[in-house]
Amino acid sequence: MTTREACQARDANDPLAHLRARFVLPDGEIYLDGNSLGPLGVNVAARMARAVENEWGRGLIRSWNAAGWYEASRRVGGRIAALIGAERDEVIVADSTSVNLFKLLVAALRLNPARHKVLVATDDFPTDRYVAAGVAAMTGAAFATFDPGEPEIAIDRDTAAVVLTQVNYKSGRLYDMKRIAGAAQAKGALTLFDLSHSAGAMKVELNRCGADFAVGCTYKYLNGGPGAPAYLFAAARHHAAMRNPIEGWFGHAEPFAFSEGFVPANGIVRMLSGTPPMLSLLALEEALSAFDGVDLGALRDKSLALTELFVALADERLAPLGFTLASPRDGASRGAQASLAHEHGYAIMQALIARGITGDFRAPDLVRFGLVPMTVRFVDVFDTIVALADIVKARAWDKPEFTTRKVVT
Amino acid sequence: MTTREACQARDANDPLAHLRARFVLPDGEIYLDGNSLGPLGVNVAARMARAVENEWGRGLIRSWNAAGWYEASRRVGGRIAALIGAERDEVIVADSTSVNLFKLLVAALRLNPARHKVLVATDDFPTDRYVAAGVAAMTGAAFATFDPGEPEIAIDRDTAAVVLTQVNYKSGRLYDMKRIAGAAQAKGALTLFDLSHSAGAMKVELNRCGADFAVGCTYKYLNGGPGAPAYLFAAARHHAAMRNPIEGWFGHAEPFAFSEGFVPANGIVRMLSGTPPMLSLLALEEALSAFDGVDLGALRDKSLALTELFVALADERLAPLGFTLASPRDGASRGAQASLAHEHGYAIMQALIARGITGDFRAPDLVRFGLVPMTVRFVDVFDTIVALADIVKARAWDKPEFTTRKVVT
Repeated sequence: MTTREACQARDANDPLAHLRARFVLPDGEIYLDGNSLGPLGVNVAARMARAVENEWGRGLIRSWNAAGWYEASRRVGGRIAALIGAERDEVIVADSTSVNLFKLLVAALRLNPARHKVLVATDDFPTDRYVAAGVAAMTGAAFATFDPGEPEIAIDRDTAAVVLTQVNYKSGRLYDMKRIAGAAQAKGALTLFDLSHSAGAMKVELNRCGADFAVGCTYKYLNGGPGAPAYLFAAARHHAAMRNPIEGWFGHAEPFAFSEGFVPANGIVRMLSGTPPMLSLLALEEALSAFDGVDLGALRDKSLALTELFVALADERLAPLGFTLASPRDGASRGAQASLAHEHGYAIMQALIARGITGDFRAPDLVRFGLVPMTVRFVDVFDTIVALADIVKARAWDKPEFTTRKVVT
Repeated sequence: MTTREACQARDANDPLAHLRARFVLPDGEIYLDGNSLGPLGVNVAARMARAVENEWGRGLIRSWNAAGWYEASRRVGGRIAALIGAERDEVIVADSTSVNLFKLLVAALRLNPARHKVLVATDDFPTDRYVAAGVAAMTGAAFATFDPGEPEIAIDRDTAAVVLTQVNYKSGRLYDMKRIAGAAQAKGALTLFDLSHSAGAMKVELNRCGADFAVGCTYKYLNGGPGAPAYLFAAARHHAAMRNPIEGWFGHAEPFAFSEGFVPANGIVRMLSGTPPMLSLLALEEALSAFDGVDLGALRDKSLALTELFVALADERLAPLGFTLASPRDGASRGAQASLAHEHGYAIMQALIARGITGDFRAPDLVRFGLVPMTVRFVDVFDTIVALADIVKARAWDKPEFTTRKVVT
């Protein structure tokens, strides 16, 4: 039997325990929703104040040059590149994940004009499916879903592009990006990976896997703040030929020449469209400093240890109470989250939140926990399992304030 | 001859003079670039600190509900609606102007499927031309430019959509939106107006003009901050039939149902795509409070008085020095900016900035001044004209630090 004391001992010996101090975390709360909204970095409020009061307030329009705003999309993209196995000039920060997915998917279809099928992983994050289906409808392509566990079956010589989120948002299943990219390349299809639930929680190796394109969200494991702008990656080999469907001035070779026709900038910059939301972008930049000096391999090791502990404790204490593990048992196939199915999942999560432990709920019946290795402690996992068991044993979830549904993010 | 004392007297009697105190303006600087980046509102820094430290830092994921983040795109859209002659539920804040233009133009083409021509005003803002040409290339439509002074000539029965910026970014020419919408309606074409250089400086009357769609930037006259998210308008009569080409979860009828297929939300909300950049959006919301209680008619009256003074002084003092007025003489055709052409325009603007008067330069030879009625004083106009005359008379612009080109926004 794992004890609370054993968990405390693991925290005391955790070589990454000091990273928690890089964030502001409310006293007395166990926050296991960093995979929905990462916590506030300790220096972000001061950085925002400087951006607002000095750069905007006093620097005014000059700050586009003097404060480096103009370069920020590229500069922050370069920092994210280091987390996802890409070169600095292959990543840029702009727009939302949805918009970036749209732009890259249309670009991919144009690079593969003889083919007309778009494949998206079954049960992938809804917006990825919606955007891809929308692109298919707009361009006359066929849309289909595929099982990312068996990519060789679905990807064929009609397939133009394959879209997959590396870690599934509900189950936390980690898919084999290299195998999928290999299967796609073997048939001449292009890959577009969504790294929203993997980057920042593990080492992602886009170029080693031979990925063509990727997008990702920055407000989860990258802690960029609510709705922080997303990033996009395109492998350098596609830069010269790829075309952005939303050709705006920030993607122009010379934006301030205000020239008659659109001339795409060299490289990844051509995938920019309009002016990026600078305050949100600068908050993200500061937030990324939490990764300074962090060994992503060590981060993944801790993440696996946290989810392993969760699975073991859930087997021991929650399985008898009607919970079913909805995440893979095999660590190599698991991201940094753990999900459990329970018929009263919604109300159980509300009761848990009322006790100061924040996870989230995903329809129809999943309670989901982001065991973010940067901030979550082993004892947090222990306390969460104990609280879940107690809530179900005491039927503490069965109150109107917990069972009544409201909008949940 | 207009004197500095006469200008000071006008400022002393200006019923809108108190609005200047709603902004943080650097001491000793005359800021005439609020049409590129509006100044910082006095309460914005405190609002940002609250958003970062309390809402994100302490509220974490809960703030999507508890702090009203989830409703913010609609709520702020509703505030902008009041400035542009639209109903509250016809405007939403999201993405950049470029992305919104793309979304609405594709939507307009789909509403007018038998037609294949897109018209954009000659000399319109580059990104508007680029985006429209890109949409045309992607959808197989024809792209052409037209003279917005003579819309009846160009708009024909092949025209699907007409794109026009109400006030031209270089000349400051104000076009007759009602006439253009009428000419378009007479031929069955749809209109898409860009309000970036008009909204916030005058009363814009979208519905009274019969406009179909509109977009606009919020970091100019609306003072939302660098790269603040843009807005989009669709007339209510189009809501049920219009389709967003970038169908993301925020535009779904039930985003948190995570349902299989995309079901568009009712109304304008379906034009959302991904998660909006919340910090930038909340800064914009606070900035809009500068318009509380402001009579847009009175604002326009002051704006016209400022540009009239500028034109009169330029005629008197700058015409003999090689400056040519590049803005309309007729007030009814003029926005809130005044532009002058001069062969040494670039260096003259740099020399002016070095003296603490900030305007901007637009290639090839325009010096441009945003005479934003909320903050600019009559005496600022006087001092600017005097400084320009002095710089040219003394050839004070002819120094390497002024003549060497750098990136300018």
